[in-house]
Amino acid sequence: MIKRTAFFISDGTGITAGALGKLLEHFPGTQFTQVRLPFTNTLDKIKLAQHAILQATQEDGGRPIVIMTLGDIVLRNAIKQSNAYFIDLFNTFIDPLGVELSQNPLTGAGIAHSVMGSSYNERMEAVNFTLNHDDGMTNSGLEEAQVILVGVSRCGKTPTSVYLAMQFGVKAANYPLIPEDFERGTLPAVLHKHLDKIFGLTIKPERLHAVRNERRAGSFYASLDNCRQEIATAENLMRNAGITWADSTSRSVEELSAIILEKIRYATTKKA
Amino acid sequence: MIKRTAFFISDGTGITAGALGKLLEHFPGTQFTQVRLPFTNTLDKIKLAQHAILQATQEDGGRPIVIMTLGDIVLRNAIKQSNAYFIDLFNTFIDPLGVELSQNPLTGAGIAHSVMGSSYNERMEAVNFTLNHDDGMTNSGLEEAQVILVGVSRCGKTPTSVYLAMQFGVKAANYPLIPEDFERGTLPAVLHKHLDKIFGLTIKPERLHAVRNERRAGSFYASLDNCRQEIATAENLMRNAGITWADSTSRSVEELSAIILEKIRYATTKKA
Repeated sequence: MIKRTAFFISDGTGITAGALGKLLEHFPGTQFTQVRLPFTNTLDKIKLAQHAILQATQEDGGRPIVIMTLGDIVLRNAIKQSNAYFIDLFNTFIDPLGVELSQNPLTGAGIAHSVMGSSYNERMEAVNFTLNHDDGMTNSGLEEAQVILVGVSRCGKTPTSVYLAMQFGVKAANYPLIPEDFERGTLPAVLHKHLDKIFGLTIKPERLHAVRNERRAGSFYASLDNCRQEIATAENLMRNAGITWADSTSRSVEELSAIILEKIRYATTKKA
Repeated sequence: MIKRTAFFISDGTGITAGALGKLLEHFPGTQFTQVRLPFTNTLDKIKLAQHAILQATQEDGGRPIVIMTLGDIVLRNAIKQSNAYFIDLFNTFIDPLGVELSQNPLTGAGIAHSVMGSSYNERMEAVNFTLNHDDGMTNSGLEEAQVILVGVSRCGKTPTSVYLAMQFGVKAANYPLIPEDFERGTLPAVLHKHLDKIFGLTIKPERLHAVRNERRAGSFYASLDNCRQEIATAENLMRNAGITWADSTSRSVEELSAIILEKIRYATTKKA
């Protein structure tokens, strides 16, 4: 396996450049060391970056990949004096897009992730809502929810809800399905009038057993038998209520969120 | 202001393509409608996408921007029959990167955001930790925290902590500074031994007043005088304890997180 370092160099947070780091997963034959260098907005900081590039080259035995968003043309040209494989988001995207739109791009630092961004307040409001409506914490305000996730305890409802809120500004409540619901054989009464925005999560018994065992090793709650029983009952309950669900066993919160958004057909189109 | 639609078309979640949507903020003169089309992995779905592209063109009076990650060359070529401005992450990034690395990229769908990704479990563990250590909820396990945020109530600790965990896999606890601490004039005792990983947040009194008023309008807690007093005392307390802090008033959680990571010098370098 070869080694390479990937630098994300930005005059702002480096988050947009860093997001492209995900594309490195397409090359499992290379072991990447990822280094973020945010707020690289002076020639002195460019020099530090160049030093880091040189050092990584020597350590890895190959030149680094540099993914960069630098608005200032002077800084941009300076960093390119180094020997690296450059992916320059201004050259590649922003400048050509400006030609397409017949508009000059803003080149100031930190534009992409400022609080002035189009959906920032909406996202923060959604995060607050979601944290206040985690794990069936309260029934008040459910009419405001855009999605309500249900499923057995520890099947992934919370991280998925938080991701939906943080990433997409979706107000996502979540409700655990618990023994009380299983005995009654129906969803919690408070959810009946919200059926249209409920989405279910399920999980394989073996995986749930493992996850719960980390919390409460050896408990009845974590036992494989109980996990099997809870999941079978929860799936029945969701089936009877006509709720769509997805299996979280081998899906990331990113994948689950994309599935949920598509299903709910909410927020896949938003005004920017 | 001109109108354009930006499509994010992917055979996976569309999250990497969508991240580039942030670059559209560089063009405030255009009003973008953003449409995500994840799981576009068949020719039938490509046809639906092409229909949407045509419709958007007519509605906007200009051709859409299409940012795409499609591993399958057949699907890639099919979508390009449409009239749009294409940013093809395979053509632009992945294929040339393969040349640089002398490796063929994996082209299967959903590679970037699978649970197999390099840091997925670490991130989910951090999210759990962070939610369990929100708002000074517990003192147990603080030695595991990689960052502990402190600041007055409602200054942005929780969303910043959650972002640090979800995005960077950083275990971020947070502690409110409350009247009890102000009277004593020192940090909560439990934090004394963790000074090296504490980072402070502060906020402008006018902004805090507005935020708190949304929660408890007209209360002493929300009054401008009390906000002024709390902030001044909290800043004094942090100054005396030698804690670095940042002002959250006009910074996004992305910006705050980047500042915190740089300061703490944690997790800016991670193995992928």
